[in-house]
Amino acid sequence: MKALRKMRPQQGAQIESVPVPAYGPTDVLVRVRAASICGTDLHIYGWDRWSASRIHPPLTFGHEFCGTLEKVGDEVTTARPGDFVTAEMHLNCGHCRPCRMGQPHVCQNVKILGIDADGCFAEFVRIPAKNIWKVDPAIPEHYAAIMDPLGNAVHSVLAGEIAGLNVAVTGAGPIGLMTVAVARASGCASLFVTEVNAHRRQLAKEMGADQVFDPQQPDTVNRVLEATGGDGVDVLLEMSGNPSAIQQGFRMLRPGGRASLLGIPKDVVTLDLVNDVIFKGATVQGIYGRRMFETWVQMTELLKHQKLNLEPLFRERMPLEKFADAFTLLETGQAGKILLLPNGAMK
Amino acid sequence: MKALRKMRPQQGAQIESVPVPAYGPTDVLVRVRAASICGTDLHIYGWDRWSASRIHPPLTFGHEFCGTLEKVGDEVTTARPGDFVTAEMHLNCGHCRPCRMGQPHVCQNVKILGIDADGCFAEFVRIPAKNIWKVDPAIPEHYAAIMDPLGNAVHSVLAGEIAGLNVAVTGAGPIGLMTVAVARASGCASLFVTEVNAHRRQLAKEMGADQVFDPQQPDTVNRVLEATGGDGVDVLLEMSGNPSAIQQGFRMLRPGGRASLLGIPKDVVTLDLVNDVIFKGATVQGIYGRRMFETWVQMTELLKHQKLNLEPLFRERMPLEKFADAFTLLETGQAGKILLLPNGAMK
Amino acid sequence: MKALRKMRPQQGAQIESVPVPAYGPTDVLVRVRAASICGTDLHIYGWDRWSASRIHPPLTFGHEFCGTLEKVGDEVTTARPGDFVTAEMHLNCGHCRPCRMGQPHVCQNVKILGIDADGCFAEFVRIPAKNIWKVDPAIPEHYAAIMDPLGNAVHSVLAGEIAGLNVAVTGAGPIGLMTVAVARASGCASLFVTEVNAHRRQLAKEMGADQVFDPQQPDTVNRVLEATGGDGVDVLLEMSGNPSAIQQGFRMLRPGGRASLLGIPKDVVTLDLVNDVIFKGATVQGIYGRRMFETWVQMTELLKHQKLNLEPLFRERMPLEKFADAFTLLETGQAGKILLLPNGAMK
Amino acid sequence: MKALRKMRPQQGAQIESVPVPAYGPTDVLVRVRAASICGTDLHIYGWDRWSASRIHPPLTFGHEFCGTLEKVGDEVTTARPGDFVTAEMHLNCGHCRPCRMGQPHVCQNVKILGIDADGCFAEFVRIPAKNIWKVDPAIPEHYAAIMDPLGNAVHSVLAGEIAGLNVAVTGAGPIGLMTVAVARASGCASLFVTEVNAHRRQLAKEMGADQVFDPQQPDTVNRVLEATGGDGVDVLLEMSGNPSAIQQGFRMLRPGGRASLLGIPKDVVTLDLVNDVIFKGATVQGIYGRRMFETWVQMTELLKHQKLNLEPLFRERMPLEKFADAFTLLETGQAGKILLLPNGAMK
Repeated sequence: MKALRKMRPQQGAQIESVPVPAYGPTDVLVRVRAASICGTDLHIYGWDRWSASRIHPPLTFGHEFCGTLEKVGDEVTTARPGDFVTAEMHLNCGHCRPCRMGQPHVCQNVKILGIDADGCFAEFVRIPAKNIWKVDPAIPEHYAAIMDPLGNAVHSVLAGEIAGLNVAVTGAGPIGLMTVAVARASGCASLFVTEVNAHRRQLAKEMGADQVFDPQQPDTVNRVLEATGGDGVDVLLEMSGNPSAIQQGFRMLRPGGRASLLGIPKDVVTLDLVNDVIFKGATVQGIYGRRMFETWVQMTELLKHQKLNLEPLFRERMPLEKFADAFTLLETGQAGKILLLPNGAMK
Repeated sequence: MKALRKMRPQQGAQIESVPVPAYGPTDVLVRVRAASICGTDLHIYGWDRWSASRIHPPLTFGHEFCGTLEKVGDEVTTARPGDFVTAEMHLNCGHCRPCRMGQPHVCQNVKILGIDADGCFAEFVRIPAKNIWKVDPAIPEHYAAIMDPLGNAVHSVLAGEIAGLNVAVTGAGPIGLMTVAVARASGCASLFVTEVNAHRRQLAKEMGADQVFDPQQPDTVNRVLEATGGDGVDVLLEMSGNPSAIQQGFRMLRPGGRASLLGIPKDVVTLDLVNDVIFKGATVQGIYGRRMFETWVQMTELLKHQKLNLEPLFRERMPLEKFADAFTLLETGQAGKILLLPNGAMK
Repeated sequence: MKALRKMRPQQGAQIESVPVPAYGPTDVLVRVRAASICGTDLHIYGWDRWSASRIHPPLTFGHEFCGTLEKVGDEVTTARPGDFVTAEMHLNCGHCRPCRMGQPHVCQNVKILGIDADGCFAEFVRIPAKNIWKVDPAIPEHYAAIMDPLGNAVHSVLAGEIAGLNVAVTGAGPIGLMTVAVARASGCASLFVTEVNAHRRQLAKEMGADQVFDPQQPDTVNRVLEATGGDGVDVLLEMSGNPSAIQQGFRMLRPGGRASLLGIPKDVVTLDLVNDVIFKGATVQGIYGRRMFETWVQMTELLKHQKLNLEPLFRERMPLEKFADAFTLLETGQAGKILLLPNGAMK
Repeated sequence: MKALRKMRPQQGAQIESVPVPAYGPTDVLVRVRAASICGTDLHIYGWDRWSASRIHPPLTFGHEFCGTLEKVGDEVTTARPGDFVTAEMHLNCGHCRPCRMGQPHVCQNVKILGIDADGCFAEFVRIPAKNIWKVDPAIPEHYAAIMDPLGNAVHSVLAGEIAGLNVAVTGAGPIGLMTVAVARASGCASLFVTEVNAHRRQLAKEMGADQVFDPQQPDTVNRVLEATGGDGVDVLLEMSGNPSAIQQGFRMLRPGGRASLLGIPKDVVTLDLVNDVIFKGATVQGIYGRRMFETWVQMTELLKHQKLNLEPLFRERMPLEKFADAFTLLETGQAGKILLLPNGAMK
């Protein structure tokens, strides 16, 4: 089969012909219908410092996808060939302390398909059956390809109370935009977004933001404070990983508020812990991956009840071979999800 | 001023002329614009067993209203004449153990205006300033008259997770119907309602229910189970107080689910605790009043952001003197809120 | 090997010679060092209505034990022969909605070893490796045989806040007594126990109760209320399953309190829902099994740090063949755990 | 009466003769039996940057104390002369959003007696009756003088689960030492303390720490990790405000753990948010003041049930006039509470 692989510890990737993966008795083999490109994939493609420390070529990367079960292992009873699926690509160990404490999403021995082992930028991908998620037929097929990042958004929004509360989302990349949609669907009150890119700000409004701000304007924090009667927002959903966005976000947060941090800063971050966290009595949550599988259940329900319109997020669909065009497009920084189609057009 | 008063320990009530209430330095005096009739008022009017044990005539009853501040006490700094307000009519003591534990809504020494002291079925009502709630100008005025029962609904729905979850509401009286609207606004997934009255079932659909059921049909529980793929609902919101509705509701609840009970049974209730609570690992919550004042904040935000369409709930508006017609109408059992207008028409 | 088996749908059980269980690639085979008798085993032995509906003879029963790994399946990497272990005997399916929602302890398809499949009243027992719990060497060996019921107690106590709170435990059978020890170790304030059996009341005091009451005395509820300054307890831990104990317990509970129900009533229970749950704003929790595996982690830590003295609970140790004597002793109703030794004396 | 007052915006303070405070109808007047010196008082005395920005001389400072009610205002019904009391010295406004959301401890308009208005370093102090806390007679009188900082410790420890969990306390000043005692009383498992001062490390052991570490040793984090089998602690209680202690603490924390931050850094702090919070899925809580009044209830129960031995914390008792000696002693950095006695010796 063909697969998009990182062959050497350097920038770039290439289509290779490799054997269809073997699968064990508790695995399934998925024929990939569409794979979506994550920011992480851009890092791997570009070979940044993180990639160099984590990725061991050769590797088929990619971890967002949907597809159809081609084969199931002998002991698999919960799925069968033909099922339309996606998957939780974080494989947890099941026996470390976080796994034992009901927090498998922060497993100490996690292995991520597409990062630590072969992923989905290929015609077929092998996945342990217990990580497969069957997609409800009421959900549009292309939505199924982005349930991994949508799950990040759902995890962030529903990590605390949200209905009837005022919310700031800092950063309107794809996950930030999904976060806007999920917060809106979950009954948040005022919803403010900060984002440097004008196009993304426009998308944020389309996804449901009440007001959007360019964080480079000097009065951004004050304008959000004013818009909340001086109180600040009840909930900060940090999706940018940008240090100044994080700092601005904390200053927008009211005493007693919640800050859920998902964006990944490139370096250490300097915080005014006293005024922004301690004296505020704030609750700060690190958000990683998706709750297994509460997030998947909630996300499925929201999708199948048509609570989320994600259409504005989708951009091109391309055959897998056009990967270079896709990466180039995404590096321009416009938000949006490009679908790679390793097995021809989706219906 | 004129007031609708229960003068004797028996059925009925009458308009009396009484002095405008005196108010202390920390009180306010409200000119009542509209007062709404609660099921509790029907009990007081009809003089049931509960009323006979709790109410000490003479009493001006009524505890749902909106109005304008006429006067404020000398020490009141948080409100001023002309403010458009409603109020939390449960006065908590501030020093019992529940009050000390952050649960003033279940104060052991609670005094309820309209039940334990004079209420709002009058031209004026006196209320401690700390219980006054200023109504945001974005909220329709007549909605402000029913924030007390709407608060019951908000308290019930937001007492646990709701977004992305399947919900059953048992009982579609006024609070049940509001509960439907609030659950819908808060991102619930499937929403099922059981209600014996066909008119109310129709209203439940208008308020946002996906499916409505007559609980007297023998297969009601099974139909809800089927509609959830055999799982049962994640959340039961019990609004009827009817023993068989409570029992049905528990049978609809999935293992690990939440049951929030607000409806008030007339007598003790027999429960299959083993199968419906213990083996299910269910969480059952008694819901009383409104969280002070989290519920009021959340409710205000939902209303001012137009998340709740309550229009189907409103019925007649009548001058206070027509109270007998109002009570007669309500005793027919059709859901809906009647507004009494002690000071002439609302704008 | 020898095994204690229920051979027919009737009272009694007998020692049989059966093959050592076969084990699969993800199973382990445990040589049982000590097995403890649960109240459930008494029901199976006596063949009550529940047993008749659930148990399918022939069956090796028993589900509380400790032992040494004799063999491990080919794919088992987390344990090896010689490990000293016990196990979570509730096997969850992993794919039902409660399992997916992080609540595997209320799995809709649970299979319990010793009830739905062969258990531990035998020289050897086969168990899936993922359900094995390695016992910390700092924990006394005989304690390891009762971690299943101790886990019930830990699950009940730690299902909500406990430190600095006043607690009532209704019922001082073995799990009730363990509950006393766990609540004490977790920093509860006053600890009251109700129990009809004088010997058990004495044991409750030894385990750490401040005051014990005979619930048949008419003033029991009032005495607990008085002992809490009229407030009632913050937490009710119901361990009896007795309807009048449950009713008494609820009357002892303060408004806003928590009631965790583990005891299993034989029949439906009549509750004053209005006064005991709804107006109180109480939180009622059904407690079943043990959280997988939070409870096991917490229990292990409490045991290995010597926070729990369970010695008063232990009674005779007997060879497996003396099972009839053991069941007879336990049926007298004195609390205490009897250990059956299928493989000779424990060291 | 005599009072210790900051008269000018500079280092130092002096005894002044001032009128006994007037009190209003909802206030009480307390005869101070003992006042304890807080680190904040050292800052005010020494006149650091924070003091210069917040304190407006002349001011009687001091906010930790116990005393006897001398007079009560006309409208005060919950206390009477002779009552032995202490007080919550943070006066919340009752109407800002945090107050309305059940979080008065982070009131946006808080006024602190002893900082923003006259405090307790005097013969008498005036306090609103609703902030008075009656001290249970089972509690040693001198303990009552330090319930304010003890409340900080109780708030920190009980802000999440603690029983059966491994804990690190960073910083063993007075509040850190109290934190050790409270965590121990609440059933924590292993308890590690880091502290640069050898004397304080010794005190930490006396208060119940299992192991103490000098954080200046290069392998401190690794030693804690090793002591937890490589997992890291479940709970970090940060009591130092020292940036490197905060950083160390986060590195000791396991994925999915809780970090409660009370210590006040002098400046901004640089954090490895990605590895220490986000990828860990950690929950970080700012801790400020005491929950009103849950913390007071829990603290009272722990004290009156003799769960906390605080004796090692107490040092000298001095007449108020000897304040300069007291401040000098405390500035040496040895942990311990000095009691100032404005009205002669305590019994």
